[in-house]
Order: sequence, then C-alpha cells, then structure tokens
Amino acid sequence: MYTAYLDNASATPVRKEVLEAMLPFFSEQFANPSNVYDLSTTVKAAVEDARTKVAGLIGADAAQVIFTASGAEANNLAIKGVAFARQKKGNHIIVSSIEHHSVLNSARFLERLDFEVTFLPVDKDGLVDPERLAKAIRPETILVSIMHANPEIGTIESILELAAICREKDVVFHTDAVASAGNIPVDVKELNVDLLSLAGASLGAPKGVGALYFHKKVRLMPLIHGGIQEKGRRAGTENVPGVIGFGRAAALAQKELPQKMDHVRKLRDRLVDGILKKVEKVTFTGHPQRRLPGHASFCFEAIEGEALIFMLAHNGIYTNTGSACASKALKTSPVLRAIGIRADLAQGSNVFTIDRSNTEAEIDYVLEKLPAAVDRLRSLSPIWGKEIPAYEEDVCVH
Amino acid sequence: MYTAYLDNASATPVRKEVLEAMLPFFSEQFANPSNVYDLSTTVKAAVEDARTKVAGLIGADAAQVIFTASGAEANNLAIKGVAFARQKKGNHIIVSSIEHHSVLNSARFLERLDFEVTFLPVDKDGLVDPERLAKAIRPETILVSIMHANPEIGTIESILELAAICREKDVVFHTDAVASAGNIPVDVKELNVDLLSLAGASLGAPKGVGALYFHKKVRLMPLIHGGIQEKGRRAGTENVPGVIGFGRAAALAQKELPQKMDHVRKLRDRLVDGILKKVEKVTFTGHPQRRLPGHASFCFEAIEGEALIFMLAHNGIYTNTGSACASKALKTSPVLRAIGIRADLAQGSNVFTIDRSNTEAEIDYVLEKLPAAVDRLRSLSPIWGKEIPAYEEDVCVH
Repeated sequence: MYTAYLDNASATPVRKEVLEAMLPFFSEQFANPSNVYDLSTTVKAAVEDARTKVAGLIGADAAQVIFTASGAEANNLAIKGVAFARQKKGNHIIVSSIEHHSVLNSARFLERLDFEVTFLPVDKDGLVDPERLAKAIRPETILVSIMHANPEIGTIESILELAAICREKDVVFHTDAVASAGNIPVDVKELNVDLLSLAGASLGAPKGVGALYFHKKVRLMPLIHGGIQEKGRRAGTENVPGVIGFGRAAALAQKELPQKMDHVRKLRDRLVDGILKKVEKVTFTGHPQRRLPGHASFCFEAIEGEALIFMLAHNGIYTNTGSACASKALKTSPVLRAIGIRADLAQGSNVFTIDRSNTEAEIDYVLEKLPAAVDRLRSLSPIWGKEIPAYEEDVCVH
Repeated sequence: MYTAYLDNASATPVRKEVLEAMLPFFSEQFANPSNVYDLSTTVKAAVEDARTKVAGLIGADAAQVIFTASGAEANNLAIKGVAFARQKKGNHIIVSSIEHHSVLNSARFLERLDFEVTFLPVDKDGLVDPERLAKAIRPETILVSIMHANPEIGTIESILELAAICREKDVVFHTDAVASAGNIPVDVKELNVDLLSLAGASLGAPKGVGALYFHKKVRLMPLIHGGIQEKGRRAGTENVPGVIGFGRAAALAQKELPQKMDHVRKLRDRLVDGILKKVEKVTFTGHPQRRLPGHASFCFEAIEGEALIFMLAHNGIYTNTGSACASKALKTSPVLRAIGIRADLAQGSNVFTIDRSNTEAEIDYVLEKLPAAVDRLRSLSPIWGKEIPAYEEDVCVH
C-alpha cells in the first residue's frame, strides 16, 4: 500500500491494541451509557476508565475532560463556549494568526456576532511574542487561544509564558494541543492552561474522537446542547468504541513518549540533514530548534507542492502540503504567509510528520527519491533559476 | 447477557455486516479523506458511497447529507445553523414542547441571545395541531422544528401538513427523524421538509455518527467551524469507520423496512394486548394508532419507573423510562407532562422499543415477568389503590 507514510499528523493507522480494546463495544457491550440498568453501567464505567487514561496523558483529572468528536469540535467548544459564557464580562478575543482553521473560523463566527477578535502576528519562526500578547490584552479581553505546536511548521509556542500573562489578567487561556500531544510532554498543570484540545486521529486512536480539558473554574456554554452526557457539557450519545480506543491510545502514547521522541528526532534529523544536503534552494520552515521532534517542513523553490505530493505518492511516499483540512481549499497556506514566506515559495510547501513506526530505511528511501522528484518538477517550472529571497520583508513585522 | 433487550431506541448492537464493512477503515484504509493522494481518495470515495446509502434511506440526494457525530449534533446544527443564517430575516422560532432535549435546549440557548421561541403544546396523544402551528407563525418566524416521531410515546406527527404550512409561509421546516428512520418510511421529498436529522445508534450502526439532510435552498451557519470537510458545513476529520458503518446500516434498514415493520408490529401488538390484559391500572401513552410500529409505552399507576427498570433488568429484560439522555437528569418526563399525564403517574413510565431481532418468545417472557414485578412494586407503594384520573384536565388545552 505504501513504502513510507510520513503524514502522521494527518492520520495514523489505528493501533492493533487500540482496535482490540474497542471491538467488544460494538456488538456486545453496546448499551447506551446513559441508562440506569447494568448493561449500561458497565459501558459507562469503561467510558470513565478511558477518560482517566486520556486525562493521564495530559496530567489532568478525569472530571476535567470532555469527550468530543474531533480536535476541531474541542477547539469550537473552547472558543465559543468561553465567549458565550463570558460575554457579560467582555467581548474581546485574541488568537494567533497561525491557529488551526477551527480556531480561526470560530473566532470569525464570533466577529459576526458582537465580539471583537485580534489576530496576533508571529515572527518568522512562527513564535508568538509574549510581550506582544501582553500589549494586546484589554480590559474587555475574555479569552486567548494560542496553539501548543503548529502542525504545518512544527514550531512549539512558549505556552508557559503566554498562559502566565493571561492568568495574571483573569483572561481564560486555551491551547490547541492536537499536534503536540503524544509528540512532546503535555501537562495542563505545568503549562498552567485553562483549556486544552486533543484529537485521537494523530495518536493511533480512531477518527471521530477528541477531547477538551477545562480547568474547573472555567465556565463553558455547550456547543452541542441536549441531554446530560458529559455532565451537560456536550450532548449526544457517546461514541463509546471511539472513546475506549482513545483511552487505550492515550495510555500507550504516555508510556512510549520518551522512546518515541528519541526515535522520531533521530529520523527527523537524518531527513532534514539529507534534504538540505541533497536539494538546493530549499527553506526549512518553522523554528529550527523549538519544534516537534518528528516534524520537518520545507518550502522548495519553484515547486508546486501538490505536484510534489503526487510524485512522491507515485513512489509510495506520503507527505503533506500543510494542514489536511485546508489542503484542498487553499492554494497558499495562511501559516506560511504569516511567517512571511513569499507567496510563490509557499506553494512549494512539503511537510513530513514521523511516527514511532517509521524507520531509517524509509527516511533513506525518501532521500533517494525526493531529489529526483524535485529536479524533475523544477525542470518544468518557468520560474526555476530566478534569484528571489525566501521571506518577504514587509510581511513579517517583529 | 440478556434475555429480552427491548430498549432499541436507546442503542442497538452494531450489526455483523456493519462491523465487517467498517473494519478495513481502522488500520488499513486509515488515511485522512481530505488529502490529495491516492490513499486518501479511496477513503474519500468510500465516505461518499456511505453518504449515498444514508441519503437513499430518506430519498435524498447524497449532496444534501451532512455527516455529524450524533442525532443531537444534527439537531443543534439544524436549529442554530438556520437561526444564525437567517437572523437578518427574523428572530422567531417554533418548536413543539415534546421535542428531544437537543432541540429544546438549542432553542433555549438561542433565547439567551436575541431570539424568541414558541414552545407549541400537543394534545393528549402527543400530536401537534396544524391549525395551532399556522396561528403561531408570525412575519418574523424563520424556523419550525417538529419531530417526526417521539421516542418516548411513539406518536407520529402529521409532518406533511405541518411542513406544507411552513413552506407556504417561507418558514424553514426541520424534523427530527432519529426515532422514525428505519422504523417507518421516511422520505424527505414526500414529507416536503427542509431539514431532517438522523442517528446511527438506533439503526444497527455504531454510536458516534448522525446526519443532517438539508434542502439545497436552505442556508446553514456551521455549528463546528474549521476546515473544508462536508463542503465547509461541518469541520473536523470525518469519523470514517463510523460513517462507513452508518452507510451499510442505512442500506440494510432500507431493504428490510417492510418486513421489519410487519415483524415488530406483530410483537408490539402482542405485548400491548398482553400488558393491558394482565396488568390493571395502566395507561397506554401516545397515539393508539399513529405510532411507531415497534413502540409501546405505558404509565403504571403507583410505580416508580426506575424501580421497574431495575426489577425487569434483574430478569434480563431491558426497557426504558423515557429518553436515554434524560433518564438520569429528570424525575418527571417533560413529554408525559406535555400530554397531560399526572406527575405521579408519569413516574411510572415504561417504554418498550422492539427491533427486527426480537422474538415472540421474548415478548411472552416479558408478559410472564412484568405483571409480577408490577404487583411486587405496588405492594410496597403507599399510593396504590387510590382512585385518580390519568390525565390532568388543566394541562392539556386542545
């Protein structure tokens, strides 16, 4: 099916142990967990065990974890849930300009109502400046959302400092940890955040499950109103098998994290060194050090990213041009534009996300195939050979 | 595990054929359907095939079906999605007073913003009167939501007439068909509705999937903002295995509907006749004829419904007191109160929902065990033996 799957931020195969944990909950332990009889209470107990495991991955108490259907839903619940619950206190929200679409578009939805949104710029490595955040906070600011790590450029934000600024000013702080959880340590108490989003699909859990951590002092308006599931915070019959799978995957991710980090960092460094050595005119995007260990992202001069994806896929190599959610919708990545990459260079984006199952042989295979694919595409490009700087000076004002 | 599972409106076991269809999409065909490469486009094609099957169950075009994580999410998307999209046209919404909590609480959320909601009463059989609806519509009315069938009392509403009134007045009409789809014919074109909600969990599909049909002229604000999934109408990585399972279950439900209706109607009639013959002082709730074929609901005089659930479960018989979502939250069912049942009689609610896998032997087993359980509980009740009419005259104003 494939030789080197290096798009693990986009989706991961459900792990064998995870599917095994899920299987009894389809046709045997199928009862609705909200009912009072024994068939239901055993299912409910399994859901709560999974909640404890997901909470464990992020150092939280199980009671502070709400299951959702995706990271996107968790982000929507955080942004809109706080906005609607705190609108009497104020109507100003701050998000970074490189947030996931589910954060950006939730904020834009609120702008159509009575809210004001500040989209905070980032520097050329993708970092939000804590001083800039402090200056952007007003008396009516109720919420700040800055992601833990960016899935497109791998940069890890200074959440500790950013969250501390917000805590001091009684502003609720949310971080989207979809890209970071399972890849680097994520601890809600250490990070001192009020809300944190997770997704199962990048953790070896099935698609269709996510979670939102919330500090017990944070009031949230539900996004999905209805019954008493999730203590009234998220209605709808629980995706029981998905939640059970998420729990198992979270427990495995927690246990394996140190070894995984070592493993993927070595492969990532081998990939980055190899590409920078073998391919000319390539920009390594995102922060060179403060980045996810299994994450490598590049912009190749005079290349159409999508064409490269197809050529690599033809060789059994699977990578991405950016966020899976945006890949079909947008020709130019807003994240790459926000860090000041030239529009035409941003077209040549290619993102590699490495998981525990990837091997050195796979990386070497990529290093064998990629340069030829780049050469071939460049030989067809009308702009190849022109001298233009990678970053636009007027876009990145830091 | 159980002898007679008669709570099929609450959850059904995932069917063997459904799980088989889902299995390849966990660990093999695991790619994110939003990506451009071949691993993703095959997954995307399977999702679209499932969409066609779900659309087929309700006589819709696939392009008019949005996948959600539950019926509750579909209801939230319909109510809030229309309200936010049409708020420039008007701010008035009408829902029946026996809607699912996901409709009622979405409406109550909108009341906290700038919307006005009319909660339409029903008669003692649970029917909404079309004339009453027509009178409730104002120039600023933008949306009416009346469920196709009520899961607690089984009553089937006159959707055809109700929807026609709305269409004439340019009011968007939504119906929650979670309880009806797969149990009676549901055709969006015949019913002439603008929006219709579905859930997988009561159809032999897994928990964690639902769908919303929308007429192509209806504008909807997304409930979950973000990426380009579901053509921008519902963000978040698709629950691929769940959706595939939903498709398979919908196709089976469509094929088997006539036989299923015959089968469950016979069993239901046997159950109703038996209970009314063997147990005194019992009120058969909901419409006597216009009701779901596999649905029987009763209020037993001087009984605590939850106690009866436990006693029946002890004998391997699984039934419900009402809606699974509400069963732990509410002591008195708002639906039973809305049809004018006395508060103390409403406590003795017991709902049986019969599926294709149930047998005559199971029904006879219930008829053997239930009367003794009722007698036992009544022997402990301080109110047993008092003469009080079942319906309160002042509640039901029809």
